[in-house]
Amino acid sequence: MNITDYLSTRRKLVEQALDEFLPGADEYPNKIHKAMRHSIFAGGKRLRPILVIASCEIVGGTIKQAIPTACAVECIHTYSLIHDDLPCMDDDDLRRGIPACHKVFGEGIAVLAGDALLTFAFQLLANNCKLSEVSEHNALKVIAEISKACGTYGLIGGQVMDLESENQTTDLNTLKYIHQHKTGALITTSIRSGAILASASTQELDILTEFGNLLGLAFQITDDILDVEGALEKLGKTPGKDKQKNKATFPALYGLHESKIMAEKCINEAIGLVRPLGEKGQILINIANYILKRNM
Amino acid sequence: MNITDYLSTRRKLVEQALDEFLPGADEYPNKIHKAMRHSIFAGGKRLRPILVIASCEIVGGTIKQAIPTACAVECIHTYSLIHDDLPCMDDDDLRRGIPACHKVFGEGIAVLAGDALLTFAFQLLANNCKLSEVSEHNALKVIAEISKACGTYGLIGGQVMDLESENQTTDLNTLKYIHQHKTGALITTSIRSGAILASASTQELDILTEFGNLLGLAFQITDDILDVEGALEKLGKTPGKDKQKNKATFPALYGLHESKIMAEKCINEAIGLVRPLGEKGQILINIANYILKRNM
Repeated sequence: MNITDYLSTRRKLVEQALDEFLPGADEYPNKIHKAMRHSIFAGGKRLRPILVIASCEIVGGTIKQAIPTACAVECIHTYSLIHDDLPCMDDDDLRRGIPACHKVFGEGIAVLAGDALLTFAFQLLANNCKLSEVSEHNALKVIAEISKACGTYGLIGGQVMDLESENQTTDLNTLKYIHQHKTGALITTSIRSGAILASASTQELDILTEFGNLLGLAFQITDDILDVEGALEKLGKTPGKDKQKNKATFPALYGLHESKIMAEKCINEAIGLVRPLGEKGQILINIANYILKRNM
Repeated sequence: MNITDYLSTRRKLVEQALDEFLPGADEYPNKIHKAMRHSIFAGGKRLRPILVIASCEIVGGTIKQAIPTACAVECIHTYSLIHDDLPCMDDDDLRRGIPACHKVFGEGIAVLAGDALLTFAFQLLANNCKLSEVSEHNALKVIAEISKACGTYGLIGGQVMDLESENQTTDLNTLKYIHQHKTGALITTSIRSGAILASASTQELDILTEFGNLLGLAFQITDDILDVEGALEKLGKTPGKDKQKNKATFPALYGLHESKIMAEKCINEAIGLVRPLGEKGQILINIANYILKRNM
């Protein structure tokens, strides 16, 4: 299966499952369920849930085992976007090509829709054993893994420093911290969680963790590059926001050319790590190359 | 042990444990940890965590088994207060007698501090087995229980309808829905979680659930009454806000006298339910009576 087909079939599976798992838009109180679904079904690459599935399959697990965790990770990603877009945070009107949650439902409901998606993610993870025949031991390990990666030493820590760095001169260490935490933590934890579900060995987990760290960094560098070079209709969000907000980015610190070289270096290093996995690691190599060349 | 001593010793245990579990105020990124601690250590009755402990002890468990879950529930309660106080929600400047989180740290950090406390709660629950010798089976059941109670069919559902009902005529059914979900859900789930930790029987769980529902309703009616009759220095928040915001409350719908009778009726019914538990249920009777007579 080529990478485009692989990504598209997995994306559809995730979206079908999200539609089944999430409360219906007509269920009381309707407004919050509409708001959650507005942001979840606005599109998106579904990269993180696909990484959960890919990693689970590589270690010997099944797609079915990975689906609830994959959906949980996408709920967490979407919650972070909804809160990040709020006027008191990044103040973005557009997300995934449609109006941000708070523009449609108001700020109060947007705060609650984010809260609800985060809470729902843990509800899915708590029911992993029933939904996907995962062992209780692995289900608990995944909750510990994801809650740590999304906390103040992970995702939230990155958002805090991103907020603190606006309109300030940011050095390379802070920039790396922001990227590794705001974006990298959830990408790495997606890969790790998929592997944990399938009882990965310590050695497998170490390789996949290092791969995830490099992939996450490359993803964020390409994100920075797309904010300079990308088109609104592809990105689904307003390009040029980083410069406008005087944000620290790789292109701002190193220029576009050097940033592209850095992204490529990360991807090549990541690919080198998973080569020893042989045939079954091929899908991660394809995903890594896809990230380097993406235009959305 | 009389009820005042009981509450005070349990409160101290919970506060000590929260201090141990939560990241230190000087840990990077400092600002978010300061904000979390600002709101967690602003005081408060610690009613919900004490209910976790009491319920766990009644069913035959230990205080030690209950502590991480008790702390998680207090983190969730505090997250809900931080978000509820935001200008886009209830817009309150004062909480637990000190400035609300967003007044000290700004709205962006307050949103993230709430997110972080919610996430940290699930991290504590995921590590329940290590922290308190709870079985993996019961630890997972508690996560399922709490995540459901805090979602859109529980706590968040209540907050949504509370937000939607501002400056509108609210009927009794909506008022009851708001109270049962915004306040009642977390109180009931605290009691249920403590019991689940100690492997309660279905019969015990049914009694405690019904007790929790009545206690939660009584708690919210007395909260409404205190908003009319209470003093700022006792409440730690501005009284009279409900009327000012034209909120649906029991006193607004039934008057003060009738509301007091209703609260008393709930408490007596709740006490009747736990009488069959004999001596070991006495602490719940004392807590119920304390809630009826509270002035903060």
